[in-house]
Amino acid sequence: MQIYLIRHGIAADRNAQTTDAERPLTEKGRKKTQGVAQRLATLGVRFDALLTSPLVRAKQTAAILQQTGLAARYELFTPLAPGGDIHLWVNWYQLQTYNAIALVGHQPDLGQWGEQLVWGDHRANADRLILKKAGMIGVKLNPNGNPLGNGELFLLTSPKWFLAN
Amino acid sequence: MQIYLIRHGIAADRNAQTTDAERPLTEKGRKKTQGVAQRLATLGVRFDALLTSPLVRAKQTAAILQQTGLAARYELFTPLAPGGDIHLWVNWYQLQTYNAIALVGHQPDLGQWGEQLVWGDHRANADRLILKKAGMIGVKLNPNGNPLGNGELFLLTSPKWFLAN
Repeated sequence: MQIYLIRHGIAADRNAQTTDAERPLTEKGRKKTQGVAQRLATLGVRFDALLTSPLVRAKQTAAILQQTGLAARYELFTPLAPGGDIHLWVNWYQLQTYNAIALVGHQPDLGQWGEQLVWGDHRANADRLILKKAGMIGVKLNPNGNPLGNGELFLLTSPKWFLAN
Repeated sequence: MQIYLIRHGIAADRNAQTTDAERPLTEKGRKKTQGVAQRLATLGVRFDALLTSPLVRAKQTAAILQQTGLAARYELFTPLAPGGDIHLWVNWYQLQTYNAIALVGHQPDLGQWGEQLVWGDHRANADRLILKKAGMIGVKLNPNGNPLGNGELFLLTSPKWFLAN
């Protein structure tokens, strides 16, 4: 059971017309995200479920992953919005029997969730996992017992390391 | 200040003629290691210091990294042999002013050292970082204070994710 925590791509700055929730991916953000999605597809990755924060920049990231063939569909999932509580989606997760799922969301939440899955808690006042935009964290979860504190980290990468060029 | 903990490539099995310390890289191990080294070079990585466990499979891995232009030379460093104590090389490290260093060694030591750099300790009886052969862990170290427990993980990858094809 593998979980991929994927950060949204580079988004446009806030302006007078858009709220934070409405900020779209920039052209560069879209391109890098497409590159990452293509690499995942080439490597044979496929998500049984693809859930995303409802914010536009995350939703657009999930749409790119879906359009690249990594998942049949994507679904909005409010616990992935900024400041979401890990227990809200872990409760959902425990009802599933998937092999691989992807959650698209935001920092610092994703990095803290990664720490919680692997080490059971996260450092106060300090992020221990550097997660860049369109980067990802891969955690292998133990199918038995509490998902928190029983995971094994198998991947942490930014697009820089992941993209072929 | 970045530290790369690099695991040796795939090595031949032990046989009647070779001790564990003498096991060389296989042809596949050599090829994958060369691919990883080439990718690092393409990405502009350069090590100010490249230290290796004295075991043959590690030394050959370090030689490939050096030959690819990632470092001017490599040096044998006995604290990197299997079962080495992190404090032995951290004491050395604290005397250096390098921007990027690479340590070539073995599991489970490298994964445990990565955990110690980032979280201060490592889980007893369980490895939390999955580090495959010719894979690597990248940690950004805080130049001030104790290197243990103050690092930030920026990379954890196996060759599978890192190589372009």
